[in-house]
This record gives sequence, C-alpha cells and structure tokens, in this order.
Amino acid sequence: MQQNKITTINEEEMSLFLNYLSDKASEISLKYFRSNFTINNKSTDIFNPVTNVDIEIEKLLRNEIKKKYPNFGILGEEIKSTSDLSDIHFVIDPIDGTKAFIAGVPVWTTLIALNNGDIPIMGIADQPYIGERYIGSPKGSFLIRNGNVIKITSKDNKDLKNAVLSCTDPAMFENDDLDVFLKLRREVSYSRYGLDALSYCLLASGYIDLIVETNIEPYDIQALIPIIKASNGYISTWNNEDPSNGGKIIAACSEELFLHAQEILIS
Amino acid sequence: MQQNKITTINEEEMSLFLNYLSDKASEISLKYFRSNFTINNKSTDIFNPVTNVDIEIEKLLRNEIKKKYPNFGILGEEIKSTSDLSDIHFVIDPIDGTKAFIAGVPVWTTLIALNNGDIPIMGIADQPYIGERYIGSPKGSFLIRNGNVIKITSKDNKDLKNAVLSCTDPAMFENDDLDVFLKLRREVSYSRYGLDALSYCLLASGYIDLIVETNIEPYDIQALIPIIKASNGYISTWNNEDPSNGGKIIAACSEELFLHAQEILIS
Repeated sequence: MQQNKITTINEEEMSLFLNYLSDKASEISLKYFRSNFTINNKSTDIFNPVTNVDIEIEKLLRNEIKKKYPNFGILGEEIKSTSDLSDIHFVIDPIDGTKAFIAGVPVWTTLIALNNGDIPIMGIADQPYIGERYIGSPKGSFLIRNGNVIKITSKDNKDLKNAVLSCTDPAMFENDDLDVFLKLRREVSYSRYGLDALSYCLLASGYIDLIVETNIEPYDIQALIPIIKASNGYISTWNNEDPSNGGKIIAACSEELFLHAQEILIS
Repeated sequence: MQQNKITTINEEEMSLFLNYLSDKASEISLKYFRSNFTINNKSTDIFNPVTNVDIEIEKLLRNEIKKKYPNFGILGEEIKSTSDLSDIHFVIDPIDGTKAFIAGVPVWTTLIALNNGDIPIMGIADQPYIGERYIGSPKGSFLIRNGNVIKITSKDNKDLKNAVLSCTDPAMFENDDLDVFLKLRREVSYSRYGLDALSYCLLASGYIDLIVETNIEPYDIQALIPIIKASNGYISTWNNEDPSNGGKIIAACSEELFLHAQEILIS
C-alpha cells in the first residue's frame, strides 16, 4: 500500500539493530559449528546443502524483525514468504557458505542487508568464529574485531597484472563463461578460492582486488553491496546492471579494474 | 658423524619446545599480517611469493633451535643450509600459504616438524589469527584453542560419494594429473579450495575427508604427517611412497578412502 511506504530510515537505530541481529545469529551458528547438526540436500543433481542451523538462524532473525519492525518485508534464503520488496525490507542469508560451514572451515558468514525498496543501503557480514564483523553503510565500511572498529578501504589498483582474483569455485562457470574466466585468470597475478562472501569483505579491506562469480542470488550479495561501495570498491553485473538482483557479478577495488575485467569477460 | 647420533627424544620436552617456537613465530606473523611487509617473487614464470615475514620467522626459528639444540639439523623453506638430515632435525615452513597471507586470508600456518632422521614424529601447524594450533605426535593429535586442548580424530568414512575433497588450487594439476583429478572430483560429494596446510588439520579434525595435491615440498608436509597419522588418518604419495619427501600427496580420513582415490588417480 503506497500510503504506508516508509520513507526515512534512522541509520543509527538500524545499525544497532543489524548488530543485534548478528549477535543473536552468532549464538546459534557458534553453538553448532564443528558440532552436531543435520544436513539436507536442496537439489537432486548437485550437492546444495541446507542445515538445521541455516533454518534456525533464519527463523530467529525473522521473528526478531517481526517483533521490532512488523511492517518491514523480509527476503531470506531458506524460508519463502510473500513480502512487499518495493518498500523497506531486510535481506537475509543465515549462513553464506554452508559447504564451508559443513567442512569446518571458518569462512562462512551470516549476511543481513537493509534495502530501502530500491537498493541495499546497509549490510553486515559476520564471521563470529574468527571474530570478524564487516559493516557497510553510507557512513563508510568498517571491520569490528575484538571491540575495535576499524575503517576499511579497498585497494587503489587499476592494473590486472597486479590483481588478486577470487571466486568461490571456478567450477561454478560453464562453457563460454568458463573460457572467459580462465582468460581473465591468466591476466591476473594469482587467484584465491573457497571464500564465499568473506572474499568481498577482503576486497573492501584492500587485500583482494577482483571477484568474479556467477549464479549469485539476491540474498548472497545485498549485504555486501554497501560494504563494497562505501570502501570505494565497485560492484556490478558483468553487463553493468543492478547487482542487487544477483546473477553474474564483478566486484573490483576500482572502477578501472572493473572495466578491464569486464572487457575480457564480455568479449 | 655416526657416533654423535642422538637416539632418544624426550617427547614432553620437544612438545614444549615446538610450542615455544610457535609462540615466537606468531609474534612476528601477527605483527605483519594485514599490515606492511615486502613481497618478492621467487620465480620468473609464475607468482611464487616470499615476504620479509617468511624470512624473519625462519631466521628466528633457526636461531632459537641453534641456541637450544646446536647439534640438531634444520631444513627450512626460505634459507638454504647444509644440515645432516640423517639424524634428528627440524623442518620449518615459516608461512605455509604465503599467497593467503598476502591476500589477508587467515588460513596460512606456521609449520614446524621434528624428524628423527627417518620420519617426522612430531608436528605443529599454527594459525594464530584464528587462534588454532594443531599438534600431532605418537601421543595423539590435538587442537589447542583458547587454552583448551581438544583431542581430534579423522572421520570414519570409506565412501568417495560422501567425501569432501580439498586441494589448494586445482590449477596446480597439469595434463594427465588434471584429468584424473577432475575424474576424482566428479566422484566426491563436493570440493573446497584455498586452504593450504589448514586443510590437512581439518582432515585430522574430522571435517575434510580427502586431500589430493602435487608439487609438495618436504617442508610443506612434514609437520602435517604426525597430525594426520595420530588422528587415524592416512597419508602417502599417489604411488604409496614416503610422503616426507613431498611430491604428489594423498591424505585421507581412512586407508580405504585413500585406496579408492588412488585407484582413480593412478588409473
């Protein structure tokens, strides 16, 4: 209903709430990480796991949001619901990197974004086992660790030859996409794999220069967009369309590096 | 000189000394991680980096060893020396995963092994940023974290279909090796990349089932052998020769899984 549209967001209040949600989520994820949990496969042809931990965290976050902001919509990975996404809403990935979670590798994150109905304007990526929480908003991008809040910025690199390229698994690319990814890989300094959303946080922190991925869902990427943007990084689709919708994503530490990568990928 | 051969090792004393060396190394690595350090390329054709951090740690460890055990040999990654490796000696990789270190990814480790002149009998893999130290000896394999010492054991899995496969980068394989690696990858549940030595620690902890790598150096693997063996895991070369010399390595959570992987890899 257009007349109920919420037009202003109190950023301070919302930042506190996103941190509160991350604290609550981490209580569950840390309880189960490297302990007993159940795994189900969401797909029949590939291993696309979901655990009871994903479900429990998403349920908890949905409940907390409904209690405090009953009019806000929610888009989550694991639970379908009919929210109005044209107004303010939250976007949740309870465990990004479920395969890493299952394999005991502490590079999974809980992702929570606040979308104003148009774009994600605030996002958190939380890795509680390592103790790293990344938050991005129009105020800037920050790493919170051991009680310290550290401003982060992406690297000032425009040169593919010196770039560190990352993607979660090169096997995500098929056919022509694989060919152009491998072409790009030959142009960069070296590659890092297996990092899921944490890779975007390391780009925002000035360590990784370039991320190229495909088959990204909105809940995989929305929390990361404010983190990348406020760190001076650049994020878009291969065709330079709105990355909030997912699909084929390029994140780069500079627009120039994005353009160099794009030239190879859409050649 | 054969008459000077040291024939007994006090395991308790050595365990304390390896922990002491790891503490000293971590003071250096944590000081530089995600901070300023210098990077040089050891190769002309590929990016094979070494940093001042690798060199400083190896120098420090060599000095500490020479002070306390002047008769013991040392094999390290970064500094050449003419040690007698037929008697008791230490094997050091100051930063295993230098690329991860440079890219700000906290999955690099400092590796220190004690070799009795025949096999590595004790090993430590230390990741101080996450706060995980893995130690293996004839007494067992343990994870030390936050002051807790936790016994670890590998998974009881004999089945490739349910196995999690890991290697640092599938691009390490070429030609026929790549073909058989990809054949193996199609048989397992899923793959994880980018973990360097930490992957072997996660196998010893019961999370990763199978690791297949190539071009492994003795200093990359010797600290991990006691950790894998005492966790009930199995480690050998593709041809089932002594893994201490490096080369092509298979580590598996069980001998049966090793044999299944080997059958595909040397077909």
